[in-house]
This record gives sequence, C-alpha cells and structure tokens, in this order.
Amino acid sequence: MSPHPTDHLFNALRSGERSALAQAITLVESTRPEDQDLARELVRQCLPFSGGAHRIGITGIPGAGKSTLIDALGMRMVEEGHTVAVLAIDPSSSRSGGSILGDKTRMERLAQEPKAFIRPSPTGGTLGGVGRRTRETIILCEAAGHDRVLIETVGIGQNELSVDRMTDLNVLLMIGGAGDELQGIKRGIMEAADIIALTKTDGGNEQRNAQAAQDLRQALQLMPPRSHGARAPVLLCSAVQNKGTTELLAQIEELAAGLGATGYTRQRRREQDHGWLRSTIEEALLLGFFTDPRIQAALPAVEAEMDKGDRSPFDAAAELLRLYKS
Amino acid sequence: MSPHPTDHLFNALRSGERSALAQAITLVESTRPEDQDLARELVRQCLPFSGGAHRIGITGIPGAGKSTLIDALGMRMVEEGHTVAVLAIDPSSSRSGGSILGDKTRMERLAQEPKAFIRPSPTGGTLGGVGRRTRETIILCEAAGHDRVLIETVGIGQNELSVDRMTDLNVLLMIGGAGDELQGIKRGIMEAADIIALTKTDGGNEQRNAQAAQDLRQALQLMPPRSHGARAPVLLCSAVQNKGTTELLAQIEELAAGLGATGYTRQRRREQDHGWLRSTIEEALLLGFFTDPRIQAALPAVEAEMDKGDRSPFDAAAELLRLYKS
Repeated sequence: MSPHPTDHLFNALRSGERSALAQAITLVESTRPEDQDLARELVRQCLPFSGGAHRIGITGIPGAGKSTLIDALGMRMVEEGHTVAVLAIDPSSSRSGGSILGDKTRMERLAQEPKAFIRPSPTGGTLGGVGRRTRETIILCEAAGHDRVLIETVGIGQNELSVDRMTDLNVLLMIGGAGDELQGIKRGIMEAADIIALTKTDGGNEQRNAQAAQDLRQALQLMPPRSHGARAPVLLCSAVQNKGTTELLAQIEELAAGLGATGYTRQRRREQDHGWLRSTIEEALLLGFFTDPRIQAALPAVEAEMDKGDRSPFDAAAELLRLYKS
Repeated sequence: MSPHPTDHLFNALRSGERSALAQAITLVESTRPEDQDLARELVRQCLPFSGGAHRIGITGIPGAGKSTLIDALGMRMVEEGHTVAVLAIDPSSSRSGGSILGDKTRMERLAQEPKAFIRPSPTGGTLGGVGRRTRETIILCEAAGHDRVLIETVGIGQNELSVDRMTDLNVLLMIGGAGDELQGIKRGIMEAADIIALTKTDGGNEQRNAQAAQDLRQALQLMPPRSHGARAPVLLCSAVQNKGTTELLAQIEELAAGLGATGYTRQRRREQDHGWLRSTIEEALLLGFFTDPRIQAALPAVEAEMDKGDRSPFDAAAELLRLYKS
C-alpha cells in the first residue's frame, strides 16, 4: 500500500502522543471541505484499533455537578491504572463559542493528569446537543489507547437519547430539592439512565438527597427496565467530600464488565452502528447537494426572491430539488 | 383550478374549526410517505394567510414554571381579545411518548378556554428539542386565525437556538437560587432571550429572586445585545399569586409591536426562511435516498454485514452512496 497523507498523524496518535490525538480530533471536527477526505481516512485507519474502551455517558442538568464528579471519577480511574478520555460536549453556545467557565478550571485535577485527556467540543448546532463528531472522536480516543471514555453532556431528555446512541452505559446525575421532582419525573431523562447518582450530598443536602433517592427508586419501579433487563440503581455521593464516588465507580465498572461479558455491549454497539450509518449518509447527501455547481449557481437568486417575499421557502426548496434531480 | 384533496380540510381550518386545525397538524406531523404530498399542499394553501401572529418562544429548564406561566399569560391574552395557540414541544421522551404529567393538567384554565388551542408535540428526536414540524404548525395556526402563538420548549442552550430560528422574540424563564448562577452563566441560554422573567417569586423566594435578578442584569451588561439592539429586561413574577404577569405581558406586547413597526420582525422572518429552506431540502434528500428502490434493495444486506462485524458503518455508508449516485 502506498503511504497516505494521514499516516504520520495516525502513527503519532497510536504511539500515544497527546498532541496527535488533539490534532486528529480537530481534523475530524473540521467543517472545511478539504479536510473531509483526510478525516474519513484517519477514522478508517483507527477503526480496527478501536472498541477497547468502556464508553460511559455522564449527563445531568447544569448545576448537577457533572464536572466535579467527573474530576473525582476520572482520577480514581487513573489510580486504578486506566487511561481516561473526557469528551465534554458544550451545548451552551453556538454563537459565542462556549461557556464562560473554561473546561480547564472545571476539572482541576484531571486537567493536570498525564493519563487523562480532556476535550471540550462544541455541539455545532446539530444532533441535539451531542457533538457532530462524537462517534468519530470516541474511535480516535480508543485508537490512541484510552480505555475509559467519558462523554459529558448537559442533559434534558433530548441529549440523553443522543448520547444513549453512542455509549455502553449512562450515568445520570441529579440533585435533590426544589424542582427536582419535575426533573426526575420526565421519563425520557430517566429512561436513558443505567445508574443514577444524587450529587452534592453534603453541606446540609444529605436529608433532601436521601428523600429524593427514595422517591426516584419508587418512580423507577413504575418504568420499564433498560434493554439489558435491569433498573438503574440510585446512589448518593459527594465529590467534594469524596463520599460515594468509590461505590459509584464500582457500580459503573461492574455494570460495564457485566454488559461486556454477556455480549450485550457488542450487540448494543452493532445497533448503534445503524445510527452512525444513517448520520454519515445524511451528511454526505447534504454536502453533495450544497456543493453541487448547479445549486451553488442557483441558490443566491432563489434566496433573493425569498428575501423579497416573492417565494416561500417551501417553493424555493421544491425548485432547487427539481434542479438537482434534473 | 381543480379541487384538491386538502381543500375541505383547508376550508374547515380557515373557518376556525378546532378539530380541523388539530387534524391539519396531525397530517403535517405524519411521517407516513402517503401523507407527505398532502401535508405540503396544505401548508402551501395556508401560507398566504399566515404571518399575522406574534410568534413568542417561552423557554426554561424543567421546574421553571413554564406551563403555569403560559396558563396565566395565555388567559390574559384571551381577555385582551386575542386567539392563542400554544405549541408545547415535549422533548422528554421519544421512547414512551411524553411526560408523565399530561398537558391538559399542566395548563388548567387555558385548556378549557375556547379561544385557546393547546398542542403538545413530540420532538421526534431531531432539531435539538424543537418539533420536526413546528415551523409548519405555526403557519397552520396563523391560517386558522390565531394571532398569538406561544412555542414552549424545555431549554438548555441547544433548544433556545432552535426556537430562536422560528420566533419573533423569546422569553426565558428562570428561578433564583441553588444552581441558578450556573443556569444563568451559560451564555447561549441568555443570548437567545429577549425578555427574562424570574418565576415563582412567591412563598419565600422573593429575596432570592430579587438577588438573582440583580446578578442577571449585571451578567447581561457583559454580553452583546440582541440583534435588534436591546438587552433583555429582567422581570420578577409569580403565576400563582398573579404578580408581575401583567407587566410581563405588557413587555412582550410592547416589544413585539416595536419590532414589527421597525420592520425588524419582517427582516428576521426572512432570515429564518433560509433555515426553513435548508431543513426542507434536508428532509427531501433523506426521503429520496431511503425510499430509492436500489437503496431499499441493498440496505438489508449491507446492514447484515455490519451486524456480523464484516463492515464498518463508515464503509457501509460509502457503498450505499456509490450505489445511489450510480
């Protein structure tokens, strides 16, 4: 086989160079047309070396303490000999490009840990709060040797379901107290959870979280179990007091191992591949349409007619589609 | 012009029959291939009669009191002589089909009001928490004579931006207190807000909300104004005590009137049409691909290879795309 332009990057990534992984993700996230082929080739090279990690979704509303808990969990994983990647999906702004709080400060210890890799990614406005390239990024992280991949998202029903399409299991973080019954009662949020942890069980929240845990366990009894047959256990933890994080990690590891051993994870990933197939096709179709010379030539005039009010977007779409098919 | 199969439904809708509007929305939301042409034709018929409403987005996290406030706001609008439509986008579950709390009980008074129409819509898993057909549904409601359309979504950054692409102005509902500084600091959420209301300013929350309002006003000063040039005012209200809702409604009406008078709304809707054009094209491309006889014939075998692990989704997509283009 002749050498390929991505060989160098691929080899550097496989040898564990952090900067190579970072660069590879940037390539894969790039929206520049000239990067698309390279990105595809790089992912193709990485695929045979992927699949070795536990893919763990961590979701919860803002303020649930996701980053603090991931910092604690990630550090414990490193202590146990793992190499951790955290993909922090930031849906907060597609206009100004991110939250005011930087990710470096959000995961203080993990950010300085050589065995951990943290990557904040913009959502790019698609796929319901999950990064446009999160699937591909997981592949790259695994090929780079990471055996624990944590995918952090702000969750509100929609996002959990997107994350659920690319993880092996999901941890839902909640806090007890005002408004929480409403957070919890939303079925979609809980339906995508394999483990639920009530965070910030400290500083006077102990009683409130204990009550919330009881309520949640009752609510879960009324819901169908996850497709692997079990209902989510509800744990209490405090990242700042380092309480319950060992138990939470043990639950995660035990469940991941169990789902792997029964072949469930393998089956689940195969099913997820169908979604990946679909989104890959979607993107290619759109790219093909909007880079077509006839469309590029016709679009400005059609849009100008829309802007003057002479044409509805509906009719404009029909006209462009006719042109594309002709 | 020859009569069209949607003529009857269109005429009933135009004459203000509630059941016709409900049926029209069901048609437009239908994913059955045989309904697509009818839905398109119906929207085309309605378009010349649309555009007359204020399109108002109402967003906020679960527990912010969206439904209670919309109930109060909607009733006041009706009292002032308006005909209200509420499109309640429910992203909570694409698996079990909705939240446990039904929409009927969520907006008690409005649900019984003949001059109001409430429509819960599933998100269908696309467009980041905004209904797949929300744009079209707005057109239908306007053609049916509704002059105030409220689009309610659970908001968490992503959704606000989607809603922002189809409304004239957006009201963000927040509650003061624990975790709220984090809710507020997320730029994206606030960037899409034209008016911010701190809800549930009652039962001991008064002080907390007053403080939160002050913090929010300061935070807003650090952010760019909305594209119409103004920063969002921050109001305090309580739907259950009926405090501040009159002021909130006055602000909404004043802003909507002002944006209409300057031509801003007209310009904004034209810009939004570009997004509508794009999503209409996207959907047509996907439908064309997946209903193509060659693809339908080839897909099962390709997916079976994926399931056996003989083919990555990446390669499967490339193969199907080659076939489609051939």
